[in-house]
Amino acid sequence: MRVELLTVGDELLLGDTVNGNAAWLGRRLADHGVEVTRSVVVGDEVDVIVAAVTSALDRADAVITTGGLGPTYDDVTRDALAEAAGVALVRDAELERRLRERVAKAGRELQPMALRMADVPAGARVLANSAGSAPGLRVELPGGIAYALPGVPFEMRTIMDEVVLPELAEIAGLPAVARRTLRTARMWESVVATRLAEVEAMDGVRLAYLPDPAEVKIRITVAGRDAAARLAGVEARVRELLGSAVYGAEDESLARVVHRALIERAETVATAESLTGGLIGAELSGAPGASATFAGGMVAYATDVKRRLLGVPEELLAEHGAVHPDVAAAMAAGVRDALGTTYGLAVTGVAGPDAQDGHPVGTVYIGLSGPGGSHTVVSPKLPVPGTGPEIRAVIRRMTVVHALELLRRRLLGLDVEGESGEARADREDRG
Amino acid sequence: MRVELLTVGDELLLGDTVNGNAAWLGRRLADHGVEVTRSVVVGDEVDVIVAAVTSALDRADAVITTGGLGPTYDDVTRDALAEAAGVALVRDAELERRLRERVAKAGRELQPMALRMADVPAGARVLANSAGSAPGLRVELPGGIAYALPGVPFEMRTIMDEVVLPELAEIAGLPAVARRTLRTARMWESVVATRLAEVEAMDGVRLAYLPDPAEVKIRITVAGRDAAARLAGVEARVRELLGSAVYGAEDESLARVVHRALIERAETVATAESLTGGLIGAELSGAPGASATFAGGMVAYATDVKRRLLGVPEELLAEHGAVHPDVAAAMAAGVRDALGTTYGLAVTGVAGPDAQDGHPVGTVYIGLSGPGGSHTVVSPKLPVPGTGPEIRAVIRRMTVVHALELLRRRLLGLDVEGESGEARADREDRG
Repeated sequence: MRVELLTVGDELLLGDTVNGNAAWLGRRLADHGVEVTRSVVVGDEVDVIVAAVTSALDRADAVITTGGLGPTYDDVTRDALAEAAGVALVRDAELERRLRERVAKAGRELQPMALRMADVPAGARVLANSAGSAPGLRVELPGGIAYALPGVPFEMRTIMDEVVLPELAEIAGLPAVARRTLRTARMWESVVATRLAEVEAMDGVRLAYLPDPAEVKIRITVAGRDAAARLAGVEARVRELLGSAVYGAEDESLARVVHRALIERAETVATAESLTGGLIGAELSGAPGASATFAGGMVAYATDVKRRLLGVPEELLAEHGAVHPDVAAAMAAGVRDALGTTYGLAVTGVAGPDAQDGHPVGTVYIGLSGPGGSHTVVSPKLPVPGTGPEIRAVIRRMTVVHALELLRRRLLGLDVEGESGEARADREDRG
Repeated sequence: MRVELLTVGDELLLGDTVNGNAAWLGRRLADHGVEVTRSVVVGDEVDVIVAAVTSALDRADAVITTGGLGPTYDDVTRDALAEAAGVALVRDAELERRLRERVAKAGRELQPMALRMADVPAGARVLANSAGSAPGLRVELPGGIAYALPGVPFEMRTIMDEVVLPELAEIAGLPAVARRTLRTARMWESVVATRLAEVEAMDGVRLAYLPDPAEVKIRITVAGRDAAARLAGVEARVRELLGSAVYGAEDESLARVVHRALIERAETVATAESLTGGLIGAELSGAPGASATFAGGMVAYATDVKRRLLGVPEELLAEHGAVHPDVAAAMAAGVRDALGTTYGLAVTGVAGPDAQDGHPVGTVYIGLSGPGGSHTVVSPKLPVPGTGPEIRAVIRRMTVVHALELLRRRLLGLDVEGESGEARADREDRG
């Protein structure tokens, strides 16, 4: 069962809108064992849509279109499907009745334009839209089935889940592929890939690497009739080869993993942030119920604030400036004392775009203060991504990941120094 | 000049990644008068990429691909372009030298896989990547030009802006359309659109509304030979109709506008955040040179911390709990005193997904403490976007915008109460 997606709308070509519908559909279909083989975006032109639908069905069994079903005159997907099917558009009496009903209920008068939403290609099946006005359509074409869904995400998702997905999943039968995504932090893509070479070579197994700043997600795809059964074994082997660098799976964020580890230990954390300005706190407070593990913290952005709020010794700042391992350690201890949490997590460094006090961009020190006052400080000299204005955002994001990963490893009793050594090696690997 | 986009990567078909690259490219090209006529996503397969590139060049003058240029074996765009051009992949000595040089400098051994990034289709032009390892490629094909860019957004953007865009813009000549994006905060899309009805009706003028949580961007497009000249007049009229709700233009963020306003006044701000957990500080510290205006702040996530760090009176918390206008005001005054800044900006409220102490999700109080100890508190009962897990993120984002907008209006001496009243009206407007 091969499906192609066709998103209709000038606003997508112009970049006014990011194509979230295609991403949602791809994910949803993959989860139900339906393979999306291509995704196309075209503008609001009948001829172009007709051509795109036709060529999609030359390659695939079905095409799902989104957009172009609204009331305005630039909504032409209905017209295009009628032309592709070689039939006329006919006014659907039941749809017209429901439209008039809706509008009357809202105490408004029906815009003549709105009646376009009651027109359907002759012979098409109407897909009820319980979430809005524009119905979906199912049209049988020579090459296969065309499903047309509205572009409004909530309406599109509703019709997809209520009508289209069950239908497609039944046609597709049991998924012939099984997928699993594992997440790693502080290990470079090329290092991950090199370690997994033997898995790459396995028959019917496919690996994809999804890199983020300081993170790599590995998507394992196993094909074949016994896919689901084999996947478990392949995942186990991948975890073996990557070891403790794997922090989670699927949508599990590093912050979520840390949150859960803290919950299990009935422990708490507070943050002291310099270059990240609050991003670590934002991550730790992102999950519902975060208040059970995240108390809060300080954003000590100005150097002076590190002394005033966190009690970083004045002579330390005078001697070394704000970017120094001992400052990170003092910040961590300071915030832990101030908030009375189990752990204090602190970062100081240079986000760029310019060097600071002679420290190059990407110099970051992370302090972790925990029970017994012990603290660890790692200094991951982060690789600088070019020279653009993005540097700051990327260095800040990397810093968040490195800090949360340090806390995770400490919570799980994993070797921290070893990891930071490896992280250094990995960075050099990319140059 | 017609250009098609081809995004390569299974992760996009599977919905692991939203196609932000295509949106950014579409926007960038449109701004330079280059028309994107189609955008296609395909998986990591040589044959499929070859076919997609070839048919794109049957329709358009150039195709821009993103993705598939990395070191791993699922990166096959290089191979596909070589096949489409009917040439072999050759190892580029200069690229290899640079790769080895970087790695040697780090005293480490090159991963053999990484050398794939030094392979180019014979006769292709290498597009220097100042932001990363994988270079871009320019390949002349029978149907037109193919530009291949890496999938990592900041690397893709760097090569696009430094090399590809100037080249394409020169070929395309002067744009026949002129575009301008204005940004507003705390005003609903429907309200903005209603106010701009007369502009919508102008000949050759097109308005697009790009809503974000608590923000609406208005994209003005003027077509015609005198486009650039007319645009200025249209923009002036739009600003007149929307008044002080327009805070900036193009990519100018609210935080950037606040930063500049503070710089001009040689004033500073500190933040005290509850439900946002650090997001406001992260925004205020996002711009280079932020330390001149943003001192830092407190993340008082746990109620107890509001008392300990910010000196919010115990009896106030005992009587009203943490979600109360007076608590927001006390937090603002507390952080201002603690950090000795000109202003203290504080937020407390309920991000959800569940109600808290009887306060519904979306109840948010913002405190602003400034010179003379005066402080303003607005209570925007934020509209709740559905019931899904995304509620939390949206409410938090809305809170950031409302807080920064309150500070902006205070800094510029704009009517704050009036705006918050209007904001309320707008909310009611949406129901």
